[in-house]
Amino acid sequence: MIERAVILSTGDELTTGRIVDTNASYIADQLNQIGLEVVAVLTVGDVPQRLEWAWRNAIALADVVISTGGLGPTTDDLTTETVASIAGRPLIFSEEVANHIRAFFERRGRQMPENNLKQARFPQGAEIIPNPIGTAPGFRLEVSHEQRTVHLIVLPGVPREMKPMMEQCVLPWLKAQRQGATVTITRTFQTFGITESALDEAVMQVISPDEARVSFRASFPEISFRLTVRGEPQTAARKLEELSERIRQRLGEYIYAEGETSMEAVVGELLTRRGLTLAVAESCTGGLIGHRLTNIPGSSRYLKADFVTYSNSAKIQTLGVNPTTLERYGAVSEQCVKEMAAGARHNAHADVAVATSGIAGPDGGTPEKPVGTVWIALDANDMSFARRYQLSGDRGWIKLLASQIALDWIRRYALGLPLDRSLAFRR
Amino acid sequence: MIERAVILSTGDELTTGRIVDTNASYIADQLNQIGLEVVAVLTVGDVPQRLEWAWRNAIALADVVISTGGLGPTTDDLTTETVASIAGRPLIFSEEVANHIRAFFERRGRQMPENNLKQARFPQGAEIIPNPIGTAPGFRLEVSHEQRTVHLIVLPGVPREMKPMMEQCVLPWLKAQRQGATVTITRTFQTFGITESALDEAVMQVISPDEARVSFRASFPEISFRLTVRGEPQTAARKLEELSERIRQRLGEYIYAEGETSMEAVVGELLTRRGLTLAVAESCTGGLIGHRLTNIPGSSRYLKADFVTYSNSAKIQTLGVNPTTLERYGAVSEQCVKEMAAGARHNAHADVAVATSGIAGPDGGTPEKPVGTVWIALDANDMSFARRYQLSGDRGWIKLLASQIALDWIRRYALGLPLDRSLAFRR
Repeated sequence: MIERAVILSTGDELTTGRIVDTNASYIADQLNQIGLEVVAVLTVGDVPQRLEWAWRNAIALADVVISTGGLGPTTDDLTTETVASIAGRPLIFSEEVANHIRAFFERRGRQMPENNLKQARFPQGAEIIPNPIGTAPGFRLEVSHEQRTVHLIVLPGVPREMKPMMEQCVLPWLKAQRQGATVTITRTFQTFGITESALDEAVMQVISPDEARVSFRASFPEISFRLTVRGEPQTAARKLEELSERIRQRLGEYIYAEGETSMEAVVGELLTRRGLTLAVAESCTGGLIGHRLTNIPGSSRYLKADFVTYSNSAKIQTLGVNPTTLERYGAVSEQCVKEMAAGARHNAHADVAVATSGIAGPDGGTPEKPVGTVWIALDANDMSFARRYQLSGDRGWIKLLASQIALDWIRRYALGLPLDRSLAFRR
Repeated sequence: MIERAVILSTGDELTTGRIVDTNASYIADQLNQIGLEVVAVLTVGDVPQRLEWAWRNAIALADVVISTGGLGPTTDDLTTETVASIAGRPLIFSEEVANHIRAFFERRGRQMPENNLKQARFPQGAEIIPNPIGTAPGFRLEVSHEQRTVHLIVLPGVPREMKPMMEQCVLPWLKAQRQGATVTITRTFQTFGITESALDEAVMQVISPDEARVSFRASFPEISFRLTVRGEPQTAARKLEELSERIRQRLGEYIYAEGETSMEAVVGELLTRRGLTLAVAESCTGGLIGHRLTNIPGSSRYLKADFVTYSNSAKIQTLGVNPTTLERYGAVSEQCVKEMAAGARHNAHADVAVATSGIAGPDGGTPEKPVGTVWIALDANDMSFARRYQLSGDRGWIKLLASQIALDWIRRYALGLPLDRSLAFRR
């Protein structure tokens, strides 16, 4: 039974930091979805003894090894040779693959460089995995290690070649091998407004370690966690639903979504469902709220306008903030941020508006209004509410957290939840 | 002598593919710059025996091991325990670090959860690496393996905590350990508007491989490259300056900066130096230009306002776009984007304004104006200029590239360079 996988990423561009290894996370995600456990990702450069080390360790750890990279035509592409040598198999030349490579160049009206024929050699016994886009096919090879069968799956490193090969060949094959038996199913919960340790504590109060595996992920200011349950398909599904219900009872409004999604997508869905239109007025967040909202396709249906009034004169002229307000209370004040929200809603003829005004730093703080002071307001037909937050962190972080609170306020407004409980989870 | 490094990335979020491991490439890049060889990156989940496997192998392979992740307060954070057990050292509680963590929570007016004190325990003999941003400090520990000293450096996994710790503590320490006769010096050039292969060709025309090592890094839409020269300090510095001059001659206006900086920082410096104020009007970029500009501290000195007029009515009411223009030519047109820029400049009393209007997709395209059609305009006292671009990619990519062109236009305007040569490098 194939249970454990190792991902092997090879190439000097990875060990010198010139590119980020997105292949490994893609493959890990795909394997995870069909219930395989990735026990390790091993990354090494194009150095023969390092590759050999990585392959030997991968084979010792896993039932299936999926490798990317090192299948090109150049002399530093060593994957096929390394696998053949470790498996103790000679390299066999495939006339069929060679013809395929020649045809690839002919279609493009180019002469095939001789070294491309290197890509037509495979360890004896390998099953070829066609490459619909490039010249280098991959292959699958079975080897024995301490009475176990280990499947080696060798793919090119270029993501746009590797991905279709995974989707068209490797994943269907793996699924077929794993039919039946037990499954692993997962569910992700997105939260905002709870610290990581408080979340851990709250989750552990309702789920015991033998019921599910819980893994947390902090991508501040959002924290998500995933429940993983293993077992016979129906039992596992029932168990996961039961645990999810306990989680919902415990965390309530601090869960803003289940599944892989973002706060701005949730806000967009809610506004669409309620038929509400939105306006935004930003000072310290500088356009970030608008940017996040407009990352969602179709956001033009609910977002009317976002007024980034960075100067006092723009606050007065564009949003109709009273000059006396600015003189008397300053731009970072309850009065100003409320007038900004009301002005934005009025100007854009929107149903609801949020506004931010604060001091993102590093300069501009005073003893009364230190860096991190942020006022947020929401204005609607039936409410005008503002609150002061004292945030800490650098400029980028204060902008991000303030934008997140503003989005959470829109979500809370659309759901009829109290705005002042945002960011205020209590044990 | 510290020559070989292993990077150890831990966390279930990596082995389940929920996030891409950007820490490993950042660290590999930094180590590469000071001349260390990264022999492997090992990635495992939060499972005791996997962590132990990874640490044992890392110690066997390297002179220095740099690990990220597993220092949080929750029960699945196991790094410190694993290191202590492998090194055969007891865990010692640091009252000083505990006080620091308590103070961290107090400053935020929050109660410290008891499990955070877990972060105040370290293997005996560890040197603590302060965390200026979060609660979890890192540490450095020396262990012996087969008569070699191996340095274990343990850092948190959150990039914004890990990076300052690398830069303020780990890299200076590593450099001091490696001090010697020859030095490695580098210079980075930031470019925009040249494809990666054209840039490669152009650079190779003026620099031969034995003069310097050239490494490219594409963080689209920007492409940077770094020259690395090794040798006796003075000779190397002279050589690097000579090569840099050749590069400047060859690439000219397509280099927007030397060193590690961003387009928005360069734009901010130029506007400040010229004493110019700026207004922005955004449609398809949705606030991204404002967001990028306001990421720069002090941007309130030159950015007056950013009008994100996502709806036609906002374009008319806020920016004074003529309703007839919208009827006759549509929002994605030369006429509209020019009126947007002029309106923004006028409303905000700014010296110069840029505007964007386009179709970011995935919906909304037509045969005449397919997805990716973007108009950009610049309006100033002495000019009103607009151009149509046909960009390709997904929604996020089109927003990003359009925002980059708009920023490049401001740079070009401030420098007196032709706007229409943005994104138009010719070999």
